[in-house]
Amino acid sequence: MSKTRNLECCAAEYRDRVFFHIKKYLAARTARLPKPFAAQVSDYPDRRGKALRPVLLMLYSRASGASGRSAEKTAAAYQLLEDWGLGRDDLLDNSPLRRGEPSLHVRYGLAPALNALDLLHVYVFDMLYSYCGLGPALYARIHRLFREASEVTLTGQYMDLLSRRTPPADFTARDYFRIVTAKTAYYTCVYPCLIGAAIAGHGGGENRIKEFGLKLGAAFQLRDDILDIENSGRGAFGKVPGNDIYEGKRTLVLYELLRRANPARARRITAVYAKPQGTRTREDADMVRELMLRTGALDAARAEFRVLAGAARRIFEARLAPRLKQPYAGLLGEFIAALENRPY
Amino acid sequence: MSKTRNLECCAAEYRDRVFFHIKKYLAARTARLPKPFAAQVSDYPDRRGKALRPVLLMLYSRASGASGRSAEKTAAAYQLLEDWGLGRDDLLDNSPLRRGEPSLHVRYGLAPALNALDLLHVYVFDMLYSYCGLGPALYARIHRLFREASEVTLTGQYMDLLSRRTPPADFTARDYFRIVTAKTAYYTCVYPCLIGAAIAGHGGGENRIKEFGLKLGAAFQLRDDILDIENSGRGAFGKVPGNDIYEGKRTLVLYELLRRANPARARRITAVYAKPQGTRTREDADMVRELMLRTGALDAARAEFRVLAGAARRIFEARLAPRLKQPYAGLLGEFIAALENRPY
Repeated sequence: MSKTRNLECCAAEYRDRVFFHIKKYLAARTARLPKPFAAQVSDYPDRRGKALRPVLLMLYSRASGASGRSAEKTAAAYQLLEDWGLGRDDLLDNSPLRRGEPSLHVRYGLAPALNALDLLHVYVFDMLYSYCGLGPALYARIHRLFREASEVTLTGQYMDLLSRRTPPADFTARDYFRIVTAKTAYYTCVYPCLIGAAIAGHGGGENRIKEFGLKLGAAFQLRDDILDIENSGRGAFGKVPGNDIYEGKRTLVLYELLRRANPARARRITAVYAKPQGTRTREDADMVRELMLRTGALDAARAEFRVLAGAARRIFEARLAPRLKQPYAGLLGEFIAALENRPY
Repeated sequence: MSKTRNLECCAAEYRDRVFFHIKKYLAARTARLPKPFAAQVSDYPDRRGKALRPVLLMLYSRASGASGRSAEKTAAAYQLLEDWGLGRDDLLDNSPLRRGEPSLHVRYGLAPALNALDLLHVYVFDMLYSYCGLGPALYARIHRLFREASEVTLTGQYMDLLSRRTPPADFTARDYFRIVTAKTAYYTCVYPCLIGAAIAGHGGGENRIKEFGLKLGAAFQLRDDILDIENSGRGAFGKVPGNDIYEGKRTLVLYELLRRANPARARRITAVYAKPQGTRTREDADMVRELMLRTGALDAARAEFRVLAGAARRIFEARLAPRLKQPYAGLLGEFIAALENRPY
């Protein structure tokens, strides 16, 4: 492998491998299903996401010394887990769009979408077992990591749902990071790195990986929350502007906004979040989004993002990179930098 | 084991073993979850169903020569799959009650219920792998059978959902049995027997088991549909009377009713089924249920049930029992007879 090729090129290749494996696995598995049902099951996988997690998994695995096909196949199973998770998130949040198209439950109806997602969930664990070609000892380890990733993420979802029932004014920055850690950071960064390292046969270093992944993952989610407010509906973001406001999500931007609001304004904002799911209007979302942009709430979140991303980079450089192989350690560094500066 | 003990006693012991394993597995797995979340995940398993499928699995496994703990542990994982499936069925059908208590989504809300069910689904496959103590070759086989059972059942669910969008008058007895076969018969009877036989190391006989299980399973579902109409709300059925009518389910009883209805009455009935999910009233359900009882539609379904159950018994006696071990073959015969005459 040439040392000159850069992250973009490498990530594009990894993505292609991941989608190749998903397509191959799903084509075989769904061949005997009724065609429209097979199409429902494969809908999100066919839309091809950014595949950030599989790329991170594969980079970390190669950087830890793995060769062969196990990493890319396992990364594909992890992407399938992501595709399943996005479908059920969209359904729970009643998000209208995913990757620029109608979300699964909008396209097929709630019950058929849920039914298709249930089979996709079965396929995640089946792909890991029957497709990835892991030996018994490695399968035991990776199975446990997939299970733990599911446990912590669904616990985070539980905490997130609970938080939406509490008044926004009671929601603190500490609550935000507690939820983000459980719901996103483990799943997006810690587990891809742990799985990648495990495939390479690395036993130690879990604590270092965890420390790094939690910072990077929190930064990643915070950046997502920021992009949701920055999104004006122009460009290719693939979601409606202020999507998180429609969904009543408790974000750090909201926390920063309420800290800055006088009592009258705070009442107007909390009234929006007190509305039942699915009843917030475009005017509600525009009003809150406008205030987030105007009062410095978004800027405060951006500042916090830079702190987190910087901390992740420093931990990576000091504690992880020296033990990792080139050129992959360098590409991982680029990956972290790219996450800091996502262009959308 | 004494040959004198009867089915009831044996089934009670099997049930106890199954619930022992589920409790042990879940207690260990959920120990680190937030307590209220753990309670959501364990809610249906804690309610202890009739565990018909695990009892069938264990009986068939013992009758095929299995000894040791693998059958009861695998039966427990299969019951966990059932508990998960009931939760998502109740949610999709908006059923208010399960085992005489508020159903999961009624008790916790839709999103938290779905989230808890997602983790329970992970635990089904994790329990099979990490708890059941199957060796690699046997695990490969049982994993495949669990996956296939999920595939065929969810395909049946897909067909069932599709059928509810078509006018009831276009729904035929053939449609009914096509859906029932996929959605219930495989899952309730064919796979428990196949899994039981596989644990005993039996390779052949799949076709005989399938032939038997499909008849028995169809009888089982038909009996369920009949009981739903017989249920007057008194007694311990644990569901509202005419629950299937509320849910708009296309059943053989409905088919028999529409065959017997004059055009005016048929229009009144189809109008009830044309209503959006969740909007059918008590008056709707009472009216349809009353007609099913009065016009002979229910009796026609009962007659069909007896044909199916009799066919299942004859296939069992002629093609399966001679190859199976006593006293379990005899107990299986009793099990089939008990299913024919379920007292609730």
